[in-house]
Amino acid sequence: MASALSDCSSRATARLLPFQRSVQSRVSQFQRSVSIAWNPLGMNAIRSAASPHWSSSAVAPVAMTTETSAKVIDGKSVAKQIKDEIAGEILRMKDGTGIVPGLAVILVGSRKDSQTYVRNKKKACEAVGIKSYEANLPEDSTEEDVLKHIARFNDDPSVHGILVQLPLPRHMNEEKILNAVSIEKDVDGFHPLNIGRLAMQGRDPLFVPCTPKGCMELLHRYGVEIKGKRAVVIGRSNIVGMPAALLLQKANATISMVHSYTKNPEEITRQADIIISAAGVANLVRGSWIKPGAVVIDVGINPIDDAESPRGYRLVGDVCYEEVCTVASAITPVPGGVGPMTIAMLLSNTLSSAKRIHNFK
Amino acid sequence: MASALSDCSSRATARLLPFQRSVQSRVSQFQRSVSIAWNPLGMNAIRSAASPHWSSSAVAPVAMTTETSAKVIDGKSVAKQIKDEIAGEILRMKDGTGIVPGLAVILVGSRKDSQTYVRNKKKACEAVGIKSYEANLPEDSTEEDVLKHIARFNDDPSVHGILVQLPLPRHMNEEKILNAVSIEKDVDGFHPLNIGRLAMQGRDPLFVPCTPKGCMELLHRYGVEIKGKRAVVIGRSNIVGMPAALLLQKANATISMVHSYTKNPEEITRQADIIISAAGVANLVRGSWIKPGAVVIDVGINPIDDAESPRGYRLVGDVCYEEVCTVASAITPVPGGVGPMTIAMLLSNTLSSAKRIHNFK
Repeated sequence: MASALSDCSSRATARLLPFQRSVQSRVSQFQRSVSIAWNPLGMNAIRSAASPHWSSSAVAPVAMTTETSAKVIDGKSVAKQIKDEIAGEILRMKDGTGIVPGLAVILVGSRKDSQTYVRNKKKACEAVGIKSYEANLPEDSTEEDVLKHIARFNDDPSVHGILVQLPLPRHMNEEKILNAVSIEKDVDGFHPLNIGRLAMQGRDPLFVPCTPKGCMELLHRYGVEIKGKRAVVIGRSNIVGMPAALLLQKANATISMVHSYTKNPEEITRQADIIISAAGVANLVRGSWIKPGAVVIDVGINPIDDAESPRGYRLVGDVCYEEVCTVASAITPVPGGVGPMTIAMLLSNTLSSAKRIHNFK
Repeated sequence: MASALSDCSSRATARLLPFQRSVQSRVSQFQRSVSIAWNPLGMNAIRSAASPHWSSSAVAPVAMTTETSAKVIDGKSVAKQIKDEIAGEILRMKDGTGIVPGLAVILVGSRKDSQTYVRNKKKACEAVGIKSYEANLPEDSTEEDVLKHIARFNDDPSVHGILVQLPLPRHMNEEKILNAVSIEKDVDGFHPLNIGRLAMQGRDPLFVPCTPKGCMELLHRYGVEIKGKRAVVIGRSNIVGMPAALLLQKANATISMVHSYTKNPEEITRQADIIISAAGVANLVRGSWIKPGAVVIDVGINPIDDAESPRGYRLVGDVCYEEVCTVASAITPVPGGVGPMTIAMLLSNTLSSAKRIHNFK
């Protein structure tokens, strides 16, 4: 699928930064309400005005076949709404039972990105009233050290969810360590028993993996009908693509799974009413891959070089946003789409776990 | 999908009976070897001569667009070959360790069809050297009675596989009973932990469910390439359709799943290089559903009325054989296709289990 990358990456410098999205959202809302055809280059000009980092010279002209624009599926705002709902439920539970949900995170080593994720999870927990527990272990810990902490959290009645931050150091057996997490506290939903229940009709998993659950929640909250629709999932990882396909199938979509061995990903994807892309390849999904009116959920978070950015890189999705937003009826931006939903779903799973363990309805 | 039934059923009276298949096989072998176009009506005449039940008046003329014929995937003969291989392995194991694999079957009630299945399984075990164990419980047994027998077989070191014959009486909780079977002896492969491992990359189930495993074995033994091919699975039951899709996907096919909510099953199926149909609807899949050259595995075993048969009915597949065999490159007949493979795979799973438990390579 690498050949599909071509030059969308260069156009991707026009990608929206978070604070720009509200501008675009207002503009496109206006344009839909007055039924005026929308020129994306015009939109780029608006973006340019709003963004000190944006460089118009980096934007190649895009040949447009349609001049409509997709609705932006605003994950950030939906995630906020969900977190507010969770905070309310946690208060109600605390008032009713005196119990507060607890989430334990085990971090091994000192990878900067992992530390950032863990810090963000902790902050998100605090914001909704979930109590955080942490175990920080040095890089050279043994498997037994990690298993000991998992066992402690498994036994601790104030902990309702346990996360092992991945990746683990290379000398550890990830499968063995993840399997040690009690199935009742596996808020990541990665345990094969959960995945099996997700796949089976008439069975329900205790937890649905957070990112695909977030994708489904976005579809639901934006009123996207799933039953009877064609859905294509691009990528088949254990943590996103595969469970996303199982969820869509459970919701009675007709699913197809596209992956690196698929010979004609473009042709198959163009049949879909709903696309979830979790390939981890920047700008893989082009405008020509999309059936007009399809709904596009972009799970990819791919760093690409960007001399204009203070960090030297920026994050883009799997989907060539500029092209696809002229064909799709709705699309998630990156960042600000699926990303914020993942953490909201982790909080949601932790709350559900506490409710289930304490039989609180 | 019901509308697709139309009148193929009436033509299906030309379906092969087991003893006819050898005739057809020889004929089509001949026709392929001398590259003569094959007229299926001519074949029907040959069938007619070989079958006292066949009535030519029931066969409507079929409009043919191509006049080639699919290779018949002979499940009966492949199953025999596999059973011979298993018998050889069991002898080797017995010689090496003194241990013989054991399969326990639990039958509750006195359904005629279940009794027949259990008797056939027992006979198949005896034929390859697997020791059979049985528990026959009356219809009005309690769940606890059944669970007690499962526990006994779980603990019995001479039992390596446990089957609970389905359906269970209505007053029993099937999920609870199936979950009681030790995962190490779940030769049916229906435990959600097995299904989860089947779905996940980098994980392997202890046992693959017998019928989909049989489908894959047929594809392998007939040299059908799977990697990179489009595969469509029709039907999504926990015991066939869903695990078949997961197996095809693990073998790097690009899978789509068609089911009762699918709006255009014909259009999607026509894209497939490989089709596994497990819908349980007689003659659902017509010739027009098939891409020329596709390989078709028909899991359906559907009884339809047949005044000509001494039993008053006969068994047909999901696939309208007469139409599809003129379009596909290879096809399984019903009966004699997937059916015999299911029991061969059960024996194979029991042997694998005994080898694993006793660490015999």
